[in-house]
Amino acid sequence: MSNKVKVGIIGGAGYTGGETIRLLLNHPLVELVFVQSRSQEGKFLHNVHSDLVGETSLKFTSSFDKNVDAVFLCLSHGESKKFLAENIFSDSIRIIDLGNDFRLGDSVAGRTFVYGLPEFNREEIKKAKNIANPGCFATTIQLGLLPLAKAGILNEVNTVGITGSTGAGQKLQETTHFTWRVNNISAYKTLTHQHLGEINQTLNLLQPNKKAQVNFVPWRGDFTRGIFVSSIVESDKTLSDLNQLYKEFYASHPFTHVADTMIDLKQVVNTNKCLIYLEKEGNKLVVHSALDNLLKGASGQAIQNMNLMFGFDETLGLKLKSTAF
Amino acid sequence: MSNKVKVGIIGGAGYTGGETIRLLLNHPLVELVFVQSRSQEGKFLHNVHSDLVGETSLKFTSSFDKNVDAVFLCLSHGESKKFLAENIFSDSIRIIDLGNDFRLGDSVAGRTFVYGLPEFNREEIKKAKNIANPGCFATTIQLGLLPLAKAGILNEVNTVGITGSTGAGQKLQETTHFTWRVNNISAYKTLTHQHLGEINQTLNLLQPNKKAQVNFVPWRGDFTRGIFVSSIVESDKTLSDLNQLYKEFYASHPFTHVADTMIDLKQVVNTNKCLIYLEKEGNKLVVHSALDNLLKGASGQAIQNMNLMFGFDETLGLKLKSTAF
Amino acid sequence: MSNKVKVGIIGGAGYTGGETIRLLLNHPLVELVFVQSRSQEGKFLHNVHSDLVGETSLKFTSSFDKNVDAVFLCLSHGESKKFLAENIFSDSIRIIDLGNDFRLGDSVAGRTFVYGLPEFNREEIKKAKNIANPGCFATTIQLGLLPLAKAGILNEVNTVGITGSTGAGQKLQETTHFTWRVNNISAYKTLTHQHLGEINQTLNLLQPNKKAQVNFVPWRGDFTRGIFVSSIVESDKTLSDLNQLYKEFYASHPFTHVADTMIDLKQVVNTNKCLIYLEKEGNKLVVHSALDNLLKGASGQAIQNMNLMFGFDETLGLKLKSTAF
Amino acid sequence: MSNKVKVGIIGGAGYTGGETIRLLLNHPLVELVFVQSRSQEGKFLHNVHSDLVGETSLKFTSSFDKNVDAVFLCLSHGESKKFLAENIFSDSIRIIDLGNDFRLGDSVAGRTFVYGLPEFNREEIKKAKNIANPGCFATTIQLGLLPLAKAGILNEVNTVGITGSTGAGQKLQETTHFTWRVNNISAYKTLTHQHLGEINQTLNLLQPNKKAQVNFVPWRGDFTRGIFVSSIVESDKTLSDLNQLYKEFYASHPFTHVADTMIDLKQVVNTNKCLIYLEKEGNKLVVHSALDNLLKGASGQAIQNMNLMFGFDETLGLKLKSTAF
Repeated sequence: MSNKVKVGIIGGAGYTGGETIRLLLNHPLVELVFVQSRSQEGKFLHNVHSDLVGETSLKFTSSFDKNVDAVFLCLSHGESKKFLAENIFSDSIRIIDLGNDFRLGDSVAGRTFVYGLPEFNREEIKKAKNIANPGCFATTIQLGLLPLAKAGILNEVNTVGITGSTGAGQKLQETTHFTWRVNNISAYKTLTHQHLGEINQTLNLLQPNKKAQVNFVPWRGDFTRGIFVSSIVESDKTLSDLNQLYKEFYASHPFTHVADTMIDLKQVVNTNKCLIYLEKEGNKLVVHSALDNLLKGASGQAIQNMNLMFGFDETLGLKLKSTAF
Repeated sequence: MSNKVKVGIIGGAGYTGGETIRLLLNHPLVELVFVQSRSQEGKFLHNVHSDLVGETSLKFTSSFDKNVDAVFLCLSHGESKKFLAENIFSDSIRIIDLGNDFRLGDSVAGRTFVYGLPEFNREEIKKAKNIANPGCFATTIQLGLLPLAKAGILNEVNTVGITGSTGAGQKLQETTHFTWRVNNISAYKTLTHQHLGEINQTLNLLQPNKKAQVNFVPWRGDFTRGIFVSSIVESDKTLSDLNQLYKEFYASHPFTHVADTMIDLKQVVNTNKCLIYLEKEGNKLVVHSALDNLLKGASGQAIQNMNLMFGFDETLGLKLKSTAF
Repeated sequence: MSNKVKVGIIGGAGYTGGETIRLLLNHPLVELVFVQSRSQEGKFLHNVHSDLVGETSLKFTSSFDKNVDAVFLCLSHGESKKFLAENIFSDSIRIIDLGNDFRLGDSVAGRTFVYGLPEFNREEIKKAKNIANPGCFATTIQLGLLPLAKAGILNEVNTVGITGSTGAGQKLQETTHFTWRVNNISAYKTLTHQHLGEINQTLNLLQPNKKAQVNFVPWRGDFTRGIFVSSIVESDKTLSDLNQLYKEFYASHPFTHVADTMIDLKQVVNTNKCLIYLEKEGNKLVVHSALDNLLKGASGQAIQNMNLMFGFDETLGLKLKSTAF
Repeated sequence: MSNKVKVGIIGGAGYTGGETIRLLLNHPLVELVFVQSRSQEGKFLHNVHSDLVGETSLKFTSSFDKNVDAVFLCLSHGESKKFLAENIFSDSIRIIDLGNDFRLGDSVAGRTFVYGLPEFNREEIKKAKNIANPGCFATTIQLGLLPLAKAGILNEVNTVGITGSTGAGQKLQETTHFTWRVNNISAYKTLTHQHLGEINQTLNLLQPNKKAQVNFVPWRGDFTRGIFVSSIVESDKTLSDLNQLYKEFYASHPFTHVADTMIDLKQVVNTNKCLIYLEKEGNKLVVHSALDNLLKGASGQAIQNMNLMFGFDETLGLKLKSTAF
């Protein structure tokens, strides 16, 4: 076990915490040392994440060991900065924050964060000490637009995206009440979703001289896992050229694939993949993109970033059996 | 409007309250005079029951008019008795209680209650001043067993039943959280469900000299409306004789039908019907029965009882378009 | 029964046929005289539409009575024109076609058709002999845009809409296989959906000097009934002015309502209503609209048109109890 | 790669074939040499199992290599015997049949089969040349009853079980049409399900002098993966003694666990686990058991059997990340 990295989780009782636990327990080069949770201290992990029954005898702790190689922060938005201000970790410890506290450039206690979207900046991630893991909608939308922005040809974008209920977290709410949500669709945060900030930041870095406004309407979907997005943009290029542009852009990236036929959400559920499919009529291009919000949209991408930071194969522990059905 | 009966609802903000409102608004011989709710006072009905937008400008009230012909109590279990003790209505006002306070013979303030299962005791309901409306599982299971009990040939019963999430009410709970409930099945109150009391009471009345134990395992289902039950019993009669027994028993009852082919839940969703289907192998008879827990299992049956009490056609206001799909 | 209109249905075995049956059976001023179906001749209606068990003893016929007041055509697209060419009905008989054969101005055997969208042209419908009933997506999108087009201020529209599986009809297909469709999302007919023709026709009539391109991406949803659409358009008007514009436009229309809070799909499921909600950021307006594809999007609107043609109250037989949950 | 076992799949286009592929692609000690399918010859695996896009470039073949260590038969029931009669494999090649052809003792071409339920006969499986992999309902029900039968105290059993749609296979059918199945429940093969044969065979072997009749009512559930079963039996033992009996019985089995709190279906979806929970009132014991029908109920158990046959750790390639939600 000496060549394994030792990792801990801060805030392990929520959905991204649980998903990070599931992945780390099966990761061949990781030893999961602690899972901290103030609310669930002393309980077995499987008391909260009941699918883990029979898989681990670990318990939630309130205190935690600072003698680890990496720490995942799975806290509510706004809590990570507070936590790192109050708890000083040695400089050598890698921090991967799954919240949104550091995605727009904020730092804390001398720590600066690299935006952890490997398809955008893998080389910086490899050298990073601290990672701001992207948001789920932000990942889906950006992966659908990166090749266009990189080519400097992205103009206005009209996007509708739909997300599973796990995106809303564990808290009981009217809009995650089964009786309301099943068989239902509705919109929320129309044109004002908080992920627009990180999306715009990336697009501005890729084409600094060209503004690409993203009009984004998020929908609540009637399923638990996954995000499906359709973005309508203008383009003078042929569909064939666009497919080539996208396929070249993603050729070296193991989790993002440009499909040759229409994609659907369940192709990616319970995997770390993002699938993209392009269609064109006249000068209108539609980019469909899909991923699992808890994996490529959260915990899976966090492990992918950890793999890159520690020099592991990028896919280690992430070759997951999809649910498929 | 002079020949309409005036009715009010006490506790109109919950699921059975809402369903009673939906039915009464479209009932041709009813004027809905008030809908009381302490928690929602002053709001429009459609602020709480949002499907009613555009259909009524009624608001919830905290006070209520006692100058009505009938009152529906849609309160939490235990609250009806308290309410009637504290609020004295004129003797001539019919009370229909959708809770479980009076199903086992309790009375309050001089009021005694008739058990409101029309297929069991329609004539008493017609003459009743006060109705204890049956429980949803209780109605489904009893309608599957009444003909056998009436014939005095019901022995031990092994029953599994599955219910939609609306059976659990409006309150946010872990087991009605969308993320947990969708695609899921689990059991609860195994062998101890509170509806066993009223089921046993009816069976004992029908065959006083023969004990028919009901072993009942309720399941939580992954849908909002409906109950489906399979009861395994022993019988020496042929399937043909049993079908005849059931069909004769229900011949005069407009909402309960014995089907000639396998039934499924969605045949009854959003209707006031109960469907029954019989199968037999060797000496084992399986009785399948299904209904909509909010209609024939609650508010629909309450209106059916009201119709009987006021001498209306039993089906008035209850010829509902099913959802079908 | 003498003051009832006699109606028949051609093609009663499919989804819109079934839904039309359900509505007509409960319509107070209609006598349903025949339901024709070549594939199901001789069977009881409830053998095919199993939710009708216990409600009618009508059977499907292959021949049909031409001595009726109105006929609903519930045929596959392309079949209505063929049917009316081969079967000559008396001029006095009203024809309501639920297919898409006559929506773009085609005529047959001397019959010309009025586009049956009451919110657009109620007065012509009242005088019409023949109605081309609009498509489901077409109705949802148009009701979201009509006030802007009427005001002559509609420019480019970017729309994503999601539809229930009943929109795909009764035929078994890969994309309506339960195992594939549940918990899934995908797109189809991107930018090329056949309803764009009728949408553009209406918009061009309303603002003949201004082209309003509609870029429409349809999605397959994980539910059976309903359509939810979000349309992104540009507008210089304030949200308050736009709400006033919409509310005035729909003030006299009993089924289309402009909501004051976010709408969701289940508010309209199993009703003939269309709900609309407006949101605005900067110069971007988002119009959300929702309806039940089998009711306001098909059979319900067909009955609404029939009511108008026969001088009945527009809402007769269409005050439906919503499923709500 | 020299120490890996070479395996092939016959009939790889269906659900159990697809699931076996998913597992074998990630198994550390397996090289998947061929996937045969007559219907899909020449296509990429991901053309049929679309979730595999980006994971393998293998294609379906019609011919196949007999130079392998093991072959999985994922054929329709009745086809395996035919296949093995027509295609002679060397004696040293292990055959694992996922169909029901050999579960009741049939042999073919000199091959006899061991019933592949590790919790029942792990030692024989280790030595077996050929395995008849159990049915999904059969596994769930047996795992709920084995400890009682082993103790010789199992009497009559009344069981209701519910299965996901994948249990019905890939073929388009009325009962797997999304529009019908979603939000629906129905029964099928009441008291006559084909898995009763193998269940009775096992129970008779365990308590040869005592007949334990199983009355089994299967239900179709509104989800894709999983089986949940409640079995009502009589027992004089205390619940505490029964829990001890069960926990001792399963102590050495890595995938079957006796839970201390109520179980639900999603605890096991996308895992190879079976969970069991016991409840008791009076002399009635209810045994709840749950598993994923495609994993512990089919392909997962097949890999488990392969692991045992080749002397691998029983859990190799089967530590799967559950879907959880």
